[in-house]
Amino acid sequence: MAKIQAVKGTRDLYPEQFRPIRRIFDAWRRASELHGFEEFESPTLEYLDLYREKSGDELVGQLYRLTDSGGRELALQPEMTPSLARMVAAKINALPKPIKWFCIPKLFRGENVQRGRLREFFQWNVDVIGSDSSIADAEVILVGIEALRNLGLTAEHFSVHVSNRRLIAAILAAGKIEDGEQAGAYALLDKAGKMKPDELAAKWNEKFGERLALEQLREWLSARDVSRLAESVGGALGMTEELEAASAQTSDVMSALSAFGVGDFCQLDLKIVRGLAYYTGPVFEFFDKSQNERAICGGGRYDDLLGKLGKQKEPAVGFGMGDVVLSLLLEDHGLLASPDRRRIVFVADATDGLRSELQRVVAGLRRAGMQTEFNYVQQALGKQLRHADKHGAVAVVILGDETRERNACQVKNLASGTSKEVSIDSLLADPAAALGIA
Amino acid sequence: MAKIQAVKGTRDLYPEQFRPIRRIFDAWRRASELHGFEEFESPTLEYLDLYREKSGDELVGQLYRLTDSGGRELALQPEMTPSLARMVAAKINALPKPIKWFCIPKLFRGENVQRGRLREFFQWNVDVIGSDSSIADAEVILVGIEALRNLGLTAEHFSVHVSNRRLIAAILAAGKIEDGEQAGAYALLDKAGKMKPDELAAKWNEKFGERLALEQLREWLSARDVSRLAESVGGALGMTEELEAASAQTSDVMSALSAFGVGDFCQLDLKIVRGLAYYTGPVFEFFDKSQNERAICGGGRYDDLLGKLGKQKEPAVGFGMGDVVLSLLLEDHGLLASPDRRRIVFVADATDGLRSELQRVVAGLRRAGMQTEFNYVQQALGKQLRHADKHGAVAVVILGDETRERNACQVKNLASGTSKEVSIDSLLADPAAALGIA
Repeated sequence: MAKIQAVKGTRDLYPEQFRPIRRIFDAWRRASELHGFEEFESPTLEYLDLYREKSGDELVGQLYRLTDSGGRELALQPEMTPSLARMVAAKINALPKPIKWFCIPKLFRGENVQRGRLREFFQWNVDVIGSDSSIADAEVILVGIEALRNLGLTAEHFSVHVSNRRLIAAILAAGKIEDGEQAGAYALLDKAGKMKPDELAAKWNEKFGERLALEQLREWLSARDVSRLAESVGGALGMTEELEAASAQTSDVMSALSAFGVGDFCQLDLKIVRGLAYYTGPVFEFFDKSQNERAICGGGRYDDLLGKLGKQKEPAVGFGMGDVVLSLLLEDHGLLASPDRRRIVFVADATDGLRSELQRVVAGLRRAGMQTEFNYVQQALGKQLRHADKHGAVAVVILGDETRERNACQVKNLASGTSKEVSIDSLLADPAAALGIA
Repeated sequence: MAKIQAVKGTRDLYPEQFRPIRRIFDAWRRASELHGFEEFESPTLEYLDLYREKSGDELVGQLYRLTDSGGRELALQPEMTPSLARMVAAKINALPKPIKWFCIPKLFRGENVQRGRLREFFQWNVDVIGSDSSIADAEVILVGIEALRNLGLTAEHFSVHVSNRRLIAAILAAGKIEDGEQAGAYALLDKAGKMKPDELAAKWNEKFGERLALEQLREWLSARDVSRLAESVGGALGMTEELEAASAQTSDVMSALSAFGVGDFCQLDLKIVRGLAYYTGPVFEFFDKSQNERAICGGGRYDDLLGKLGKQKEPAVGFGMGDVVLSLLLEDHGLLASPDRRRIVFVADATDGLRSELQRVVAGLRRAGMQTEFNYVQQALGKQLRHADKHGAVAVVILGDETRERNACQVKNLASGTSKEVSIDSLLADPAAALGIA
């Protein structure tokens, strides 16, 4: 029959490929737990309507849709936030706030496959719901930074670009580009990197040029210091209450990041807009600092989403970090391979007729917490020892006719090369000690 | 707007509900690793054809189908084995054998929702490919037993029913019910529990009664001892080579289970047939021993599947164990709730103006490996201490104006009730010692 392949954009993760991803999961989970986040899980199958109303157009276009046996329209989860908002809205009054949750779902997007973009991928999601404190924004960024640090990445490898949709909006508003037009302005700014400068300028001038010069705006969006930016905008366009409040909020997030000891990783970058529809305040992206300049992670504050899904508005901030770009970044810096932390003990039988005894010893070692291997079929001892070597065994237990009479075995520590006879009872009572691998 | 619900048959797993499932995952993963199995991951989206040809009719009818943007027919993974076989077939010559792999995918079946059956569920899969040794069959069963033992279940709670499709086939063949008719005989036997005895007898007699009396067959299938069974069948119908070989194989599996020290959990039960199309030899089910008698796990040997998917036939044995029935079983025995192993440290600021210092201490404690919580907003100390209590904190660190002058803080161990002043430096250098929670 014709060979069936893996679907394009999906991955067959053999143990060798999955091991580094497991290490990423472990780093994500450990950082989440240390920072007080609790793990939850949401369904992969959701009603299509959840995304129709809550996600940006780009994501809706990429949805995997299906119809269940009752004719209802479903979609495979392309992002976590709508499900999270749905779950929180359903129990909003029973849940103590702030809610600090994380999860590591597999997500699905029917997008064009390219390096760093797949149709099935894992994504770490971290969210705080029920606090409008800038310390919450900073803590969410902090947990992301700490997870990457635990994977061996430093401020040499990545940086966090912090922006604020509210501050950009306040600048636009001070320049008389009001609410209804801002989406168009964002869309242009977001495409700035992908458009020819002339083309961008022409499009901007056509719509907004008379009110706010693109060059001036871009200079402001390049500011590295919030208070000087506010002064400059205020001086040119007149200070507004919203401009003051949004600047203060941005400063607070930056200060909180410094207080958490991760100021070195972070910089103001108002060129970050974030494509998704629901952000309302501070937003951020983690960037690969190499020439590739890939975004590793993106998130921000979305204070309006819960109100749209339930009865009650709740402030919220969070991010998503996928495994695909992160794996590429780790690989580029030789940090992807995880040290094999297995400590395999191999049990061999030197002659026929010891299979039952071998199985008893194997099961006993495993129950005592040792990762233990053996051959399913009795073979020449030399062959078994080569298998032990292939498994990367740290110690070998050899059962033979002679030692059996004394209810004992030979143990060989492969690191030190030492060999000795021990009783089976003492081996099973304290394997690490008996094998010298404590 | 109308509230959007979770899709029927899916679960919103809030942290409280997910914690016990995480504990199950941890037990599955730990047992797998101790027994030398390596974790892999396969895509959720597969081509529909993978299941059309490889799965039983029941599963194919329950598939969630979808069409990708290129018009190709896809399905959501309803079981792991076809994907595993596809992945192994693709690298059959490069992979050292025996292949010992496990995984914990989320699977999807559009079946009728009932207690113990959902449309989205997690399933632990364990497989050995490339060995026809009965020790491999036994090891697969062993790892399942050990995972359940680690969750607190004993031989009081569950038992493993071991059968052998090959032995049943040999008995039928000895009774002149040949290959082509056996599928019909299996189907009848598999439904025995769900049919009225009269109805079953009538259907059997119509097709097979003249060659093999149903009563006689059912007596044989109730045998608890393989060698006596073989004698009895051989005496009545004549001994065949296949009957001898299949009996020996069955005995070997039972002996290997005893040698592994888990004979107490296991019993011969040839009434187990297993619905799926691909089993070729020993098969088994783990049963809840309570009145519910639910199957917790099922699996067996499937030596023909790899040959159907690739060029090369390879012997294989494995099982799947879902989280849903297992959770119900653990719940019934009060074993579901996992002890909260978190050791939260709570950091409080007694006065205004210490927020930055508090954030520095929080970040430092977390970097030193302590799970640390604090309030995003400064509040009265009494209120903060009540929050510490709600979080189940084991220790509280209190920053105040007076201690700050000495670059110190108060630490309070909530178990012992003792309180003392320590320097911030020594707290961050060795938090467990400073907090007395080592």
